[in-house]
Order: sequence, then structure tokens, then C-alpha cells
Amino acid sequence: MEDSKDDIYSENLINIFDSIKKQTKKCYTINTMKNLFPVLVWLPKYNVKLLLPDFVAGLTVGLTAIPQAIAYATVAGLLPQYGLYSAFMGCFIYIIFGTCKDITVGPTAITALMVQAHVTGSPDYAVLCCFLSGCIILCLGLLNLGVLVRFISIPVTTGFTMAAAITIASGQINNLFGIRSTSNQFVASWCNFFTHLREIRMNDALLGVITLIILLMMRKVKDLKCSRYKMFTKYISLSRNALAVLAGILLCYLLSNGDWLPFRVSGEINPGLPPFKWPPFSTTINGTTVPFKMMVSNLGASLISIPLISILESVAIAKAFSKGKLVNATQEMIALGMSNILGGFVSSMPITGSFTRTAINNSSGVKTPLGGAVTGALVLMALAFLTNTFYYIPKATLAAIIIGAMIFMVEYDRIAEIWKSKKIDFFPFMVTVVVCLFWSLEYGIVGGILANVTFILYKSAKPIIIISKEEINYIKIGIVDVMETLCYSSAEYLKSQIMQFIATQTEGNEIKLIILKIQDNTSIDSSVALNILSLEQDLSMLKCRLVCWNWNVCAAGVIYRLHSKGNQLLKYGKSYTKLIDDLKLSSSIIPFDTEEFKLEEI
Amino acid sequence: MEDSKDDIYSENLINIFDSIKKQTKKCYTINTMKNLFPVLVWLPKYNVKLLLPDFVAGLTVGLTAIPQAIAYATVAGLLPQYGLYSAFMGCFIYIIFGTCKDITVGPTAITALMVQAHVTGSPDYAVLCCFLSGCIILCLGLLNLGVLVRFISIPVTTGFTMAAAITIASGQINNLFGIRSTSNQFVASWCNFFTHLREIRMNDALLGVITLIILLMMRKVKDLKCSRYKMFTKYISLSRNALAVLAGILLCYLLSNGDWLPFRVSGEINPGLPPFKWPPFSTTINGTTVPFKMMVSNLGASLISIPLISILESVAIAKAFSKGKLVNATQEMIALGMSNILGGFVSSMPITGSFTRTAINNSSGVKTPLGGAVTGALVLMALAFLTNTFYYIPKATLAAIIIGAMIFMVEYDRIAEIWKSKKIDFFPFMVTVVVCLFWSLEYGIVGGILANVTFILYKSAKPIIIISKEEINYIKIGIVDVMETLCYSSAEYLKSQIMQFIATQTEGNEIKLIILKIQDNTSIDSSVALNILSLEQDLSMLKCRLVCWNWNVCAAGVIYRLHSKGNQLLKYGKSYTKLIDDLKLSSSIIPFDTEEFKLEEI
Repeated sequence: MEDSKDDIYSENLINIFDSIKKQTKKCYTINTMKNLFPVLVWLPKYNVKLLLPDFVAGLTVGLTAIPQAIAYATVAGLLPQYGLYSAFMGCFIYIIFGTCKDITVGPTAITALMVQAHVTGSPDYAVLCCFLSGCIILCLGLLNLGVLVRFISIPVTTGFTMAAAITIASGQINNLFGIRSTSNQFVASWCNFFTHLREIRMNDALLGVITLIILLMMRKVKDLKCSRYKMFTKYISLSRNALAVLAGILLCYLLSNGDWLPFRVSGEINPGLPPFKWPPFSTTINGTTVPFKMMVSNLGASLISIPLISILESVAIAKAFSKGKLVNATQEMIALGMSNILGGFVSSMPITGSFTRTAINNSSGVKTPLGGAVTGALVLMALAFLTNTFYYIPKATLAAIIIGAMIFMVEYDRIAEIWKSKKIDFFPFMVTVVVCLFWSLEYGIVGGILANVTFILYKSAKPIIIISKEEINYIKIGIVDVMETLCYSSAEYLKSQIMQFIATQTEGNEIKLIILKIQDNTSIDSSVALNILSLEQDLSMLKCRLVCWNWNVCAAGVIYRLHSKGNQLLKYGKSYTKLIDDLKLSSSIIPFDTEEFKLEEI
Repeated sequence: MEDSKDDIYSENLINIFDSIKKQTKKCYTINTMKNLFPVLVWLPKYNVKLLLPDFVAGLTVGLTAIPQAIAYATVAGLLPQYGLYSAFMGCFIYIIFGTCKDITVGPTAITALMVQAHVTGSPDYAVLCCFLSGCIILCLGLLNLGVLVRFISIPVTTGFTMAAAITIASGQINNLFGIRSTSNQFVASWCNFFTHLREIRMNDALLGVITLIILLMMRKVKDLKCSRYKMFTKYISLSRNALAVLAGILLCYLLSNGDWLPFRVSGEINPGLPPFKWPPFSTTINGTTVPFKMMVSNLGASLISIPLISILESVAIAKAFSKGKLVNATQEMIALGMSNILGGFVSSMPITGSFTRTAINNSSGVKTPLGGAVTGALVLMALAFLTNTFYYIPKATLAAIIIGAMIFMVEYDRIAEIWKSKKIDFFPFMVTVVVCLFWSLEYGIVGGILANVTFILYKSAKPIIIISKEEINYIKIGIVDVMETLCYSSAEYLKSQIMQFIATQTEGNEIKLIILKIQDNTSIDSSVALNILSLEQDLSMLKCRLVCWNWNVCAAGVIYRLHSKGNQLLKYGKSYTKLIDDLKLSSSIIPFDTEEFKLEEI
């Protein structure tokens, strides 16, 4: 009997050991290179049959990437070319380091919005932010600290996405109607819109609203059931943003009259490819040189929030498209970090995995990450040859593209799921949404995380403790089963629960012995141990003994090492009867002076 | 025999019952008044026999309270009379609201140190801080938010106490040697000391060091084994601070020569009792009026930390002297809050339970809280008649008293216990100590709490999950036992553990079914539920089923409500064999195209 128990224990231990090994085994094997450069695994196996699907997919993604990049540059408050500068490096780098064939790394609406607050003055801030974010993401990846994003729960990410989408869409509402606006914030944008209603430019408003309606319709086109044109409608739907930009440019060019343009446009942009140079470690604003230290302190908390959000977005997309395989989050973070670091050399703003474009990549049937090369090449070509054309892109068209994308970024189903499954999870969701909208995105996500962490802390302070009563040989004993981990926050709770239990016993049913059982595999900390020793003293004044019953080595060790007395608390065995005999407990009552007790009681 | 036993115990039980009712029963019964005013319980039973012990104890405490109050006023950077102003109101109020006969409420070294940073300019800050702290403590008490102090673990409180003791003692090192000093901070004080060594005044240094040595010796006097003078030595030991002050005053007075004094003294103080007036809701510094809002914003984080530390100290003392009874923390907080609120009307600085004086009260054999009245009266008498005498108190004497007290405030045993029982608990301890000493006490305690909370969060992100393998009817199944609570931070961990387990199976041993078991009594949140649904989808791609086995209603409900599919995941029963039959699982291997899979693998 004793043996079999030992066997079960060792069995358990082996299991635990195994899972520990899996996690901690970091020794360098021959596969290290292949892990670090996944391209070494798939490129040698590449064959010509894969070329066509990769090419088609890359092209389709490129047609979305270009208008999106330009649009997100305006969200970030940058000139359009910066969007394109950001859109190619990630594609190339991800080929080398990426593990998921579908992911497209580039500028996204959320990172654009997050960097926007710091761009006022100089685009150098965005570029430095890109470079530094890359360094931070790489470090977090190498240190395996990506697990930090686990503390951003689904309600918080959902709330954050929704708030970001609303903020971004609100920021474009002025552009959609041709109203001048300086802010991209939620409240400020709508204030500006309603106070400047008279300044609506009819041309821009018409173009914007019609483009938006057509975009929304084109999105639905692929769901049409005419199977004959299925391939055609699918590509129309996928390249709708490119078509909208094209239409906008054409319309603007054709209706222009000398210097007069029918719409407000993005304006002059530098032609050509971005120079490959060091990221701007200092910048000049209005003739004043801003040193590196000042730039970093201006970027401030963004240097934490942008990397975290980037990791979150990228890893989430990798998981969504992993099709049941394990996602190597560390490698994804290395790929993302390298993309941002090298992006910093080509004047990129912070980039991350884009859900839209990844989905397009996937549905276009990409076979390997090589599709990214086609996308990247297309962006480079646009930069080299089309910058003059981009001058004519109407702001209203970009606004329509952005708003059209944001409408579908809100995860309506997810919100419903959270509401249905657990109402209380709506609390961190609402905190995130409200703080994001009315304060800032950074504080919103921090607020949401804090609101959610209180759940964990509350739970840790109130573990489930089941106290039952037994009577053995006329001795009443209380059996305390702690069903969860004990830690310092629950130490006093345990003590007070036991004291209350003792106190609520009726006359003649005094508990003589408390048997404290904790779970296998859990340990305790010194606060718990000290509270248990103090509980033992308190109980002894009520003529009640305390025993820690069959504790595992880990937890028992803490009690044992603490105090010479600790030793006496720890008892092992199978039957309580034997324990009661050992402790020489009897049901006889030890009388004590009532009068004195009363005085002490006051 | 049986009867007498019942009597004794029922007495005991009624008392304990009362205190339980106080904590949990919130409806207003006849006992509410008695709960709120514990004085109504014990005062009617008061008899003349208790008067002598209460009087002796009150007197002894008073003899310690007066020199301590004056000393702590200097720690707070206030004139000596403010210490005395703070030392009487708490004693009177605690008689009415207090539940523990031993506790003495008054100025303490830690609250004095914490308020010191804000006193520069005007004592009004300390008085306002006292009043507002009282309001906050009262609110926290009434809202039952005292549980918040549970998140301050023993290592953090130990570290905080040690750092505070070191800071306070360091702040007095200059006074001990007669050096002028403006700062009470740890680093600044020692810097000042070593840079001004030449300015040591021999008189002060001699007085200070000799007083300190004598005080330390007198503390040990009561441990002498000559039982004949036991009572005498005990009282000598208990009143050693008063004797030191008396000796200092006498020496200073006798050696003085006209206006020349042999020692640096505390200086002129206002005679008489403090006026009973509203707390200062605005103050004047250098002719400028500082409004209430500005005063509050100057006090800043202290308005959180001082109440929390006060509660922590007071409740900890109540527990230490409760002798196994349940401490009614809410009532203790009400008593403390009222003491501080009313203290604000008599120019008191923040006050809380004093461990030293409570211990003296207890060892002097106090029988009811009425002893506090004697202490309070003694302080009032000192204020009324002795303020002229206090002019002669040498600073060096006060410094010696403070340093003498601080040496014993450090819980050396506790530190050893923490180190012995669990090394990792030294981390929050060290964080607290270092931040307290080199930054500030407030940030130190926040840093310690944060360092400690990471333990809880880390644990919550990595619950113990045991995965074992079984084979039933040639079907390989994996049984996943989650031994702890699942929450959003562990949702992905669970998923990745299961996916790793699946991935490490060798060929021909493919797991066909994962049985997920969670603990009774625990629930899950929506993030976990969503991750389980996504796990189910991932597993189905690997031709593996997922079943939530025998989940309790609470947890199952979350899955069930989430999705129409959720229903299919939940299975109940006793044997896995029947489950396998129900699921129509077979051990045949479904072949799939290796080539295609390889491509997907990239």
C-alpha cells in the first residue's frame, strides 16, 4: 500500500519533470540555426510549382498594402511616403525569420495611431520609435518575456481594438467631409466636426461617402453566390482599396484645372526610395536640435506600449493562422524585432503583423513566406515610379478606406461572446474602452490590465477553503481543505476562516484538533508559514491543536525550517485515529478561571 | 463537572460569537450600538477592583508616552508640544471605540517619519494629514476595505519597519552628537554627519552617547534574575525614557549659566493645552495663503500610504495582543479613524497604535481600555504644567531615546525566519528596504507590494497542469488535470501545454482524445473559455477530440453559453470507456497527404 502510493507520487513527479524539461531545455543543438532562420528549412525544399501561387498572393497583398500604407501614414500624421517606407522592409525580413507563411508585417492602424501622438514636429520620432521598439521586441523575445502579453486578456484586447477602431475612424471623419482638422483623437475629432459643419466641402464629401459605400459593397461582393464569376469577384473584393485609390487619383487628375484641384489631397511627396541610413538619434525641430535622451523621454511610455501591442497583434495573428500547430512566439518576436530594427534604417514607422493583409495573403493561397518578397517589391516599385501619381490621392478617398477598414476591425461577435459567457469580464472591457476613448490608448490598456489583475488578486486573497467536521473517538476534529494555492494574500484569510469555524461551534462540541490539508504540488510562502505558526498559538489558547497533514516536501520544508516548533506541526499518516492517539488528545475538559478569562476578554 | 464546563465555554463562546457577528452580520440589531461602542459592553461591568491595575498601567504608559511623544515630534520635524498634542486624544477616543484593552493610540516613529516630508513650512500640514487620514481610515473601515492590507506581506512589512527604523535612527545621529542637520533622510543624514565631523559638540555627544548606553542597559535590567527587586527593576525598565528625559532636563538646567545652555535644546514651546478648533483647511506659509486643494496635492500619496500603514500597524498590534480571539478589524479601523479625526481638532499629527506602549500597557497588567484615560490625563497635565520645563530637554537625550527605541524596532528574528523558511521571499524584503532607504518610504512599500504581487501573477500564469496518458480500447487518450484555478493569464499556458503534449507523441501513438478536468468549485473566465474553444478547433485539425469532463455548473456554464459548439464539449460520466464509445472514436489512422502537410508545415 505504502509502495503503491510512492509509485503514484513518482509517476506524478516524472510528469512534472518532463514538462519542466520541455520548458527549460535551452541547450544549443544543431537545430538552433534552423530555429533562428526558418528560411533554411523551407527554402531548400522550394519548388517551381509554388512560385505561381506565391506570386499571385504577393501581388494581391501588395495591392492592398500600398493604399493601406498611405492611409495609415495619414493616421500617424506623416506624409504618405512614410507609409510606403514602412511597408516593404517587414516583408523581406519576415521571409528570413518568420515561421508562419501567411503573416505580412507592415504598418497597421493601431501602431499608426499610437505613434501619432509623438510625431508632431518631426517624422524622426516615428522612425526612432520603430528602431527602439524593434530592439525592445527583440530583447523581450530573446529573454522569453513575450509571456507578459498573457496578462492582456481577451476582454482587454477586444476593448482596445474597438476603442482604437473608433478613435481612428473618428479621426478620419473630418477628412471624409473635407474639413480641416488638427487632431486625431476621438472627442476632439467629433467636436471639430460638429463645430465646423459649415465648412464641409461638397466635392470631398461626395467622393468620400460614395467611395465608402462602394468599398463596403465591394467587400460583400465576394459573398455573392454566382459561382461563375467567383474568382473574378474575389479579386475585385480583395483589391478594392487599390481600385478606390486608383479611381480617386483619376478623378482628381481629370477634374483638375491648372493648379486647382477638385479635392483636398495629401500633397507633394518626395519621390524615390528612402535612403538607407542610421535611425535618427537626434532631430532638429524649428532649428533646435533635440538630443537622443530628450527624444526617448518624449516617446515615453510608448516605448513600452507599442512593442507590447505589436507583439500581441503579431503573435495573435500567428496563432490565428497556425492551424493547430504550436506557434513559436519567441521566433515570431525575433522576426518582428528584426523587421522593426531594420525598418528604422529606411525611415519606417513602427510595424507589426497586419490582420487584414495576412487574411488576404491566406485567402489568396500563399504557399510560403516568399510571397512577401512580391509584396515588398511592388511597394518599392510604387515608391520608385508612382510617387508623382500619389500627389493626386484625395484625402477623402483615404478616409473612406480607413473608415471602411475600421468598421470591420471591431470584433462584434467577440463582444457578444464575452457578454454571454461571463458578465463580469465586461468590466475590464469597459474600463479599457472608456479610458482609451477619453484619455489615451496607453492608459486604456494599462487600466484594462489593472482592472483585470484585480480579479487574480481578489481570487488569490480568497482561495476556496472547505472546512468539515468529524468526530473520532469522541474527539471533535475540524478538517480544513485548502483547494487552491496559499500565498501571502490569503494567509490571514485562512487564519480567520479557521478561527471563525472554531468560534461558531456550539457548546459541548468544542473542536480539539484542526487538520490542515493543502494540495499536492503547491508550496507556501513565509507569510503563510508565519500565520500558521501564529494560528497554532492562538488555537492552543482555545485548547485546540493544529496539525499540517500529509504536506508535500516543498510546503512542509517552509514550516520545518521556520521554527523548532514547526517540526511538531507536521504529521504524516493515513488515519486520523492514529493521529489522535499520538497527540494524546482526550475529550476531558481542562477547567480554567472564569473570572480571569472575562477580564482578559474585554 | 459537565455543567461548569458548559458555563465556562458558553461565556467564551458568547464573546467570540459577538466578535463574529460584528464582522459578518451587517443588519442592524440591538447589538449594533454595542458593536460600535464596545465601551457599552465592558463599562457597566466595571468594578472597583480593576481601578488600581488600570491606574498603574496607565501611569506607566504615560511615563513612556510623554518622552516618546516629544521625541517623535522632533522626528516629524515639529515642535515638541505637537507630540504631546497628538498623545492624548487617541487614548480617550480608544476607550469608547476600541476592542482591545492593551492598545495605546498615539504618535509613532513611522507615522512621524512619513509625515515629516510634508511638514516643511507649516505644522498645519501634519494636522490636516491627521484629520484626512482619519476620514480615510474610517471610510476604509466602514467599507470593509481593510482587507487591502493583506496584500502587504510579512516580508514587505518587515522590510518597511527595518528601513523606517534605520532612517529614523540615522536622522537622529546628528542630534546625538550635537551637529546641526536639516534632513531626516538616511543618505542625507549620514552625509551630513561625515562632512560635519569637526562640528561635533563634546557636551551633546557625551550626554547623547551615555544616555543611549544607559537606556540600553536599563532595557536589560528587567531581565536580571534577582527576584527580590523584580517589581522595582521592572518599573525602572519601563519608565527608563521618562527617567532619561528627567535626567537630561536636570543636567541642562543645573549646568546652564544665564542664557548659556550646555546642550542644544528643543527650544521655546507654547505653554498650555492645544485649542479645540477645526483642522486647518488652509494655511499661510511666508505670508502666502495655501488653499485646501494645494495642501491636499502637496500631501499627495501620503494620504494613501499613511492610512494604510496606520491600519497595518494598529491591526497587527490588535492581533498580537488578541490572545487567540478574532480581531474585529473593522471596529479597530473605526476606532483609529475616529482618533485621527478628533485628533485633527487638537493639532495632532497622524496617530496609530504604538507597539512599544501597547506592550508596556500589557506587561503593566492593564485590565480595561480605561487605563488609557490615565495616560491621556497625564499627557494633558504635562502640557498644562510642564511646558516650561520641556524647554530644557536636550536634543541629544531625545536622539538617544529615539535611537534606543529604533534598535529594537528591527525584527531581527523575523528577518532570520524569512531567510530560513523561503529564500525567494527575501526579494520583496530587499526591494522594500532598498527603495525605502534610497528613495522614499512610500515608494518602498509600493515597490515591495509590486515585487510581491508578481509572485501571485506568475503563479496565476503557470498553474500546475498534470497531463497523463492512457490507452482504452486501443485509443490513446490524454488526461489533463488542472490543479489550480484557471484564469485569463493561464489560458494560453493551458493551451500550449496541451499542444506540446500532443506534439511530443511519437508516430503511431497519436492522441485521439484529450480529457480536460478542472477542480470542483472553481470557475473559468471568458478568456479561458475562448481559448478552450480555439484549442478544440486546433486539436480537430490534428484529428483529436477535446472533452471537458465532469465540469461543475459554474465553469461549464461559461463554455455552454459561449457558443453552440460549447454544448458538445461538455461531457459527464464515470468511465472513459463509455465516453469513447459515445464519441465513436476508433483507433484507425486517417491517412493524409504527407506532401501537402509538409507544405502547410512551413
